[in-house]
Amino acid sequence: MYSEDLIEKANIICEALPYIRELAGKTVVIKYGGNAMNADHIVNTIMQDVAMLKIVGVHPILVHGGGPEINAMLARLNIQSKFHNGLRITDAQTMEVVQMVMSGKINKDLTSRLSRLGVRAIGLCGKDAECTEVKKMVSPDGVDLGYVGEITKINAELIKKLCRDDYIPVIAGLGSDKEGMSYNINADTVASEIAIALSAEKLIFLTDIDGIRADRDDPASLISAVTVSEINRLIQEKRISDGMLPKVAACAAGIERGIRKVHIINGTIPHPILLEIFTKNGIGTMITR
Amino acid sequence: MYSEDLIEKANIICEALPYIRELAGKTVVIKYGGNAMNADHIVNTIMQDVAMLKIVGVHPILVHGGGPEINAMLARLNIQSKFHNGLRITDAQTMEVVQMVMSGKINKDLTSRLSRLGVRAIGLCGKDAECTEVKKMVSPDGVDLGYVGEITKINAELIKKLCRDDYIPVIAGLGSDKEGMSYNINADTVASEIAIALSAEKLIFLTDIDGIRADRDDPASLISAVTVSEINRLIQEKRISDGMLPKVAACAAGIERGIRKVHIINGTIPHPILLEIFTKNGIGTMITR
Amino acid sequence: MYSEDLIEKANIICEALPYIRELAGKTVVIKYGGNAMNADHIVNTIMQDVAMLKIVGVHPILVHGGGPEINAMLARLNIQSKFHNGLRITDAQTMEVVQMVMSGKINKDLTSRLSRLGVRAIGLCGKDAECTEVKKMVSPDGVDLGYVGEITKINAELIKKLCRDDYIPVIAGLGSDKEGMSYNINADTVASEIAIALSAEKLIFLTDIDGIRADRDDPASLISAVTVSEINRLIQEKRISDGMLPKVAACAAGIERGIRKVHIINGTIPHPILLEIFTKNGIGTMITR
Amino acid sequence: MYSEDLIEKANIICEALPYIRELAGKTVVIKYGGNAMNADHIVNTIMQDVAMLKIVGVHPILVHGGGPEINAMLARLNIQSKFHNGLRITDAQTMEVVQMVMSGKINKDLTSRLSRLGVRAIGLCGKDAECTEVKKMVSPDGVDLGYVGEITKINAELIKKLCRDDYIPVIAGLGSDKEGMSYNINADTVASEIAIALSAEKLIFLTDIDGIRADRDDPASLISAVTVSEINRLIQEKRISDGMLPKVAACAAGIERGIRKVHIINGTIPHPILLEIFTKNGIGTMITR
Amino acid sequence: MYSEDLIEKANIICEALPYIRELAGKTVVIKYGGNAMNADHIVNTIMQDVAMLKIVGVHPILVHGGGPEINAMLARLNIQSKFHNGLRITDAQTMEVVQMVMSGKINKDLTSRLSRLGVRAIGLCGKDAECTEVKKMVSPDGVDLGYVGEITKINAELIKKLCRDDYIPVIAGLGSDKEGMSYNINADTVASEIAIALSAEKLIFLTDIDGIRADRDDPASLISAVTVSEINRLIQEKRISDGMLPKVAACAAGIERGIRKVHIINGTIPHPILLEIFTKNGIGTMITR
Amino acid sequence: MYSEDLIEKANIICEALPYIRELAGKTVVIKYGGNAMNADHIVNTIMQDVAMLKIVGVHPILVHGGGPEINAMLARLNIQSKFHNGLRITDAQTMEVVQMVMSGKINKDLTSRLSRLGVRAIGLCGKDAECTEVKKMVSPDGVDLGYVGEITKINAELIKKLCRDDYIPVIAGLGSDKEGMSYNINADTVASEIAIALSAEKLIFLTDIDGIRADRDDPASLISAVTVSEINRLIQEKRISDGMLPKVAACAAGIERGIRKVHIINGTIPHPILLEIFTKNGIGTMITR
Repeated sequence: MYSEDLIEKANIICEALPYIRELAGKTVVIKYGGNAMNADHIVNTIMQDVAMLKIVGVHPILVHGGGPEINAMLARLNIQSKFHNGLRITDAQTMEVVQMVMSGKINKDLTSRLSRLGVRAIGLCGKDAECTEVKKMVSPDGVDLGYVGEITKINAELIKKLCRDDYIPVIAGLGSDKEGMSYNINADTVASEIAIALSAEKLIFLTDIDGIRADRDDPASLISAVTVSEINRLIQEKRISDGMLPKVAACAAGIERGIRKVHIINGTIPHPILLEIFTKNGIGTMITR
Repeated sequence: MYSEDLIEKANIICEALPYIRELAGKTVVIKYGGNAMNADHIVNTIMQDVAMLKIVGVHPILVHGGGPEINAMLARLNIQSKFHNGLRITDAQTMEVVQMVMSGKINKDLTSRLSRLGVRAIGLCGKDAECTEVKKMVSPDGVDLGYVGEITKINAELIKKLCRDDYIPVIAGLGSDKEGMSYNINADTVASEIAIALSAEKLIFLTDIDGIRADRDDPASLISAVTVSEINRLIQEKRISDGMLPKVAACAAGIERGIRKVHIINGTIPHPILLEIFTKNGIGTMITR
Repeated sequence: MYSEDLIEKANIICEALPYIRELAGKTVVIKYGGNAMNADHIVNTIMQDVAMLKIVGVHPILVHGGGPEINAMLARLNIQSKFHNGLRITDAQTMEVVQMVMSGKINKDLTSRLSRLGVRAIGLCGKDAECTEVKKMVSPDGVDLGYVGEITKINAELIKKLCRDDYIPVIAGLGSDKEGMSYNINADTVASEIAIALSAEKLIFLTDIDGIRADRDDPASLISAVTVSEINRLIQEKRISDGMLPKVAACAAGIERGIRKVHIINGTIPHPILLEIFTKNGIGTMITR
Repeated sequence: MYSEDLIEKANIICEALPYIRELAGKTVVIKYGGNAMNADHIVNTIMQDVAMLKIVGVHPILVHGGGPEINAMLARLNIQSKFHNGLRITDAQTMEVVQMVMSGKINKDLTSRLSRLGVRAIGLCGKDAECTEVKKMVSPDGVDLGYVGEITKINAELIKKLCRDDYIPVIAGLGSDKEGMSYNINADTVASEIAIALSAEKLIFLTDIDGIRADRDDPASLISAVTVSEINRLIQEKRISDGMLPKVAACAAGIERGIRKVHIINGTIPHPILLEIFTKNGIGTMITR
Repeated sequence: MYSEDLIEKANIICEALPYIRELAGKTVVIKYGGNAMNADHIVNTIMQDVAMLKIVGVHPILVHGGGPEINAMLARLNIQSKFHNGLRITDAQTMEVVQMVMSGKINKDLTSRLSRLGVRAIGLCGKDAECTEVKKMVSPDGVDLGYVGEITKINAELIKKLCRDDYIPVIAGLGSDKEGMSYNINADTVASEIAIALSAEKLIFLTDIDGIRADRDDPASLISAVTVSEINRLIQEKRISDGMLPKVAACAAGIERGIRKVHIINGTIPHPILLEIFTKNGIGTMITR
Repeated sequence: MYSEDLIEKANIICEALPYIRELAGKTVVIKYGGNAMNADHIVNTIMQDVAMLKIVGVHPILVHGGGPEINAMLARLNIQSKFHNGLRITDAQTMEVVQMVMSGKINKDLTSRLSRLGVRAIGLCGKDAECTEVKKMVSPDGVDLGYVGEITKINAELIKKLCRDDYIPVIAGLGSDKEGMSYNINADTVASEIAIALSAEKLIFLTDIDGIRADRDDPASLISAVTVSEINRLIQEKRISDGMLPKVAACAAGIERGIRKVHIINGTIPHPILLEIFTKNGIGTMITR
């Protein structure tokens, strides 16, 4: 009488509907950067996912970092990049370029892509309405990192208002100190602090790995859902790779400080956000209290 | 890297999301009765569909008729059923039974089923808040049909309020005249008139056929979407079967009087509502202006 | 210059006005059933009183029981009535009839009568929006009473909303358990629990006696107003008849649980509600904290 | 079983309730002055009626004139009263006294009486918030009447706000021109114009006669209710006495300009307002469109 | 290129703007009376200041006393003025005159002046809406002062509402006791108590001195701003003149009871309020916590 | 008694207050660019003026152009600037730099300056929420200007919301076409179109001239206020210099399309906005209908 296909279709939709309902009116912060930004044939499916979230009544917030375009512009201007313990030593002229590329190029390009999908996006950096207040980061070993900042306060009011008014805030990972000086800051941290300040339902990291594994060497051991205490056990048992450790620890800390759920997913798969949050098992790892 | 299944899943969800958004906050009237009520293994999937609509922010209204339970109770009470041109001749004692079975049994049973699915349903008949005002129907051939009524007015205020307050109104196809006398009325007409009074986005008839066919004898000629003017042409070309004619004509009339879309779908398929309105082609026939 | 009649009229109106004001916007639950339902020449004056309350801005709620119509229908269907300690042993087929008669007949008839008086009434049973949640009552002596329930929870939200929207809820004394099974429940208890859940200003029992007497044998000793502690003393002094004891104890309990005033009045007098609450001494007994 | 008294009481209350409902939230302007002010044993019942109106949710506005206290004060100050065609010739020093006595004495005394009855009254004159704008009245025969004004505009906003906030405005029949000069004005006109500006439900004149008679010499021919066109006929047939003519004509004009009902009643009867508006026939004459 | 005058102008406006902003939506109570009322060529600039406050969004309240007009009217009526320790012994006929002159003359005249400046003013006395409740003052030495009252309660609701609705309340310093009897009260106290009841931002006394001096004999030692504790020190050091002592002590008490700032300024200078509160140093003395 | 200085101060404040009131809640668009941006010792007084407007309840919007920083960056990147009829020929790599400098540098710097003054500013470009929609400008002589756009639509909703929420929008004069490509646009036109779209009360051009002169060669002939029809006469009489003609014509067109007042003022004077709009004669030229 009716095909198996219909049954399958009905089942997939039935599976998605409750998640859609559950997220309606909730805030979802998405950290986007690094390699996930390079998988160019994927970028548009990610923007589609972000737009779709807004369309079904969720409040997505996109936080982005810089990436290769900053280095390219520094090279064109013959400014040498120096790093210390993985942090870019950011002198005044470097900072000027970082700000221009992040706020004036990447940020506006992402905003444009979302606009073309029919949603209203608005590009911000941490200097707007002083939403990200920072102070100069002091390196433990005394090296002067220049304009590298650490967050002292998130002023979330503007972001909340834009979400409520159905805009998608696209936020460059920059901040300013009390004198209005610009600082470079880690985009993962910006995303986390914004999610905490907004008591977000979800914080999603688009990375280039599939998630957390029970056995670090076995791709088949991907964990779909895990609690903070289970994570602590995995860490104790040294089953989390060193590369993953800081991110996983940060996720757990975010949960402790009020984010409901943190997701680590592979941003190089098409439609990764949609598959993670509107299907039963998702595609990556969800961390909960 | 990722399976075909994931892509298919992502596509089905992507397909559904815009329809979900489009219907958010809209009113959908569902006429449920006759054979579709008998397909017992299907009934629960239909109630799930109705509940799901409410869950994703749509305002469903369920209108039901009587069916075999009325005859069964009349038989137990030794009251003989008489019909004239397909209409039940309804004397006072028959009417008493019709009202008791429809308002006191079927209506409350559907309400209970919805409640168990976690949504709030409320059973009404046309006498509550005088929502369905009727007058005695006069048969063209002068035969006295007894308490068979035709609708003179729908008082939709209560129904609107309940929808806005997130209740699902479950409405028995009965009405009362100005003296408070109860009348039996055709449930298709009740559903239509309520949809018109509420300027519903959709009116869905759950029937035991698949929809309108371009060629009345070819099941493969099912028409997914059709306009009122195309229907009029089909009628003129005598391509609509006699049995379908009154229902199809009524659908077209409903569109003319303000319903946005009328659907004729097969209520004996599982999840018929969900498949019709959350997939691109649906499973039945959608009639639009 | 002006007649004694005018002075008397002015006085009666002056007497009523402050009570009208005092009750404006307050909730009054009226339990209607048993003999008071039979005094047919009185029924309409009672419906007028209920309608009048709504008209002057009070929120009346009418709770009704079953009475002789259930027995009549059971007899017509050859279902035998069995009782145990005054409670009807309610098997499945009896329950089906109880529900049909109460929700499908009495409830809709009272609703119709109120509608004809120009107010908007809406008939509910405890299954609608799961407003009365029950569990199977366990008889102390182990006898299985069938579908006789005791109330576990009142979901008053729907009733409150309807009152605020100026509907008169007419509620049949039925409930359903978590599986959606219907249960027969004592209508006095339903009225009490609803009044408690709504922190009602008044709960009025329309009975066939005049109220509480100081001397159980002296009609002239009717007590107009009495406190809970005075009632306790009357009970201790055994001045309350055995027949009255459970009802009086229930009234006192209702006061303890938040109802402001409970009235026991004679429902066989015309306009009993109006005379009780809009005149200085009333016609029955008012119990207060 | 129950006394005739109870039936009578129920009937009087039943009679009053619909009127109370009908007037809820409506505006009633009461003109109080002249002889009705002298019937000292009656004054308090009138203030009770005004307070009672506020208590049952009506918005009463009390407009008063001056009366004998002005003459008394003028006499004490040796200021001679002169009249021309029934209008007081009001020179500057007379006007000063009129204003002081009306705004500073009578107005505040009525305000105090109402306050003592537990309602919130506030005394105003036409100068407050410029609610009564006037210009100098020009006598047809060219006689200079001094500070006698005719109303050019009512600024009703303040009065409306006070009513909505549940104050009873008590308004002295004075006004001011564009330069802020005070003027004496006819209190009947003030009451009429305020009632028109507020689209009042009722304008009640408390006079020393019973109302309009069909036969000017027969007290038993008092007319309870009359339309404007019937009044015009009575006037044509010269059945209205000369003394009554201006007031009756003004009432008819008020109706034409938007007041729903005008009442002429005897202010020397106790509780005259209450008896007129909360009983079926009232005690005076009600004029309607 | 641009003149010194422009720079000066820019500076004065720059100086005023923050004060204007700071006061927006705040309440300022102004006590006006005595000699400041006599400087006739100044009165209009004061009314302009009050109107201007309302125009820029502040909520001014004007409280006034009586002054020479009361004595003049008493003289005209041959009522002798008697005083005891600076308080007028107020018998019934004196009180009647005090009330008439204050509520019926001065109050309405100030109201008119404000109205002519295009703002909406409304004249009240303490009897309206019972805003100033008093009891008979008992003189320490047992002398009966007659109708001289002390404040027992301020009912500020009406005043607040009028302010919010953009009226300027003009309040005569009178009150009434529970029986509705009028009493004469000190206008400084009325202003203070109203400012306290409204948690006013400012209470401004328009007097005939320039403010508080550090050296009572040196006009050049005027103190612009002073705290309560500094005042207490000045008092201890006996640097405040005896005449000033009660007023200064009352100011300090007002601050303790919730007024934010109290100003003593010279009401015989044109535009004294505007110069005091919209310039950096003001012209008088501001007392703060 | 009081100095001339006080009188002068009172007068200047009295002069400013009505303008402050008049502008409360109104929108003022300020075009800032070119030479006015170079007068570095003035820039901060201009930012103070903008902040002050927000502080006293006006809604300022700052629209800025590019200026010398674009040329500097192009030079550093060895990109040659070409112009055609005064318009920059903007190829893809030039456009990238224009966008980065305007959105990523100037815009964020102005935003920072405002933030440091204690107001909340937010930097936008025409790509955010697609607020400035453009199409490629076609040069009359067929020369391809590259990414030089002309405005097709202003989507003002976001700007309005930010104003209402008390943010100061700082808008870079850029736009994007339907494909999301960035375009360079004339900042005067952006400011005008935004002012028209918002029905702004004022549009203020900060230029390097004093305003319009009656005699183009006489600085003393500066016109304080002029109507559109007077401007047309001046143009006809050839009294407006060629350099001023396009700007003056654009101002007149803006008035015709709904801006209430357009001001041309000298942005090289300190506090130019404040002096123009809060003093009687201002410092430049105000054009009105």
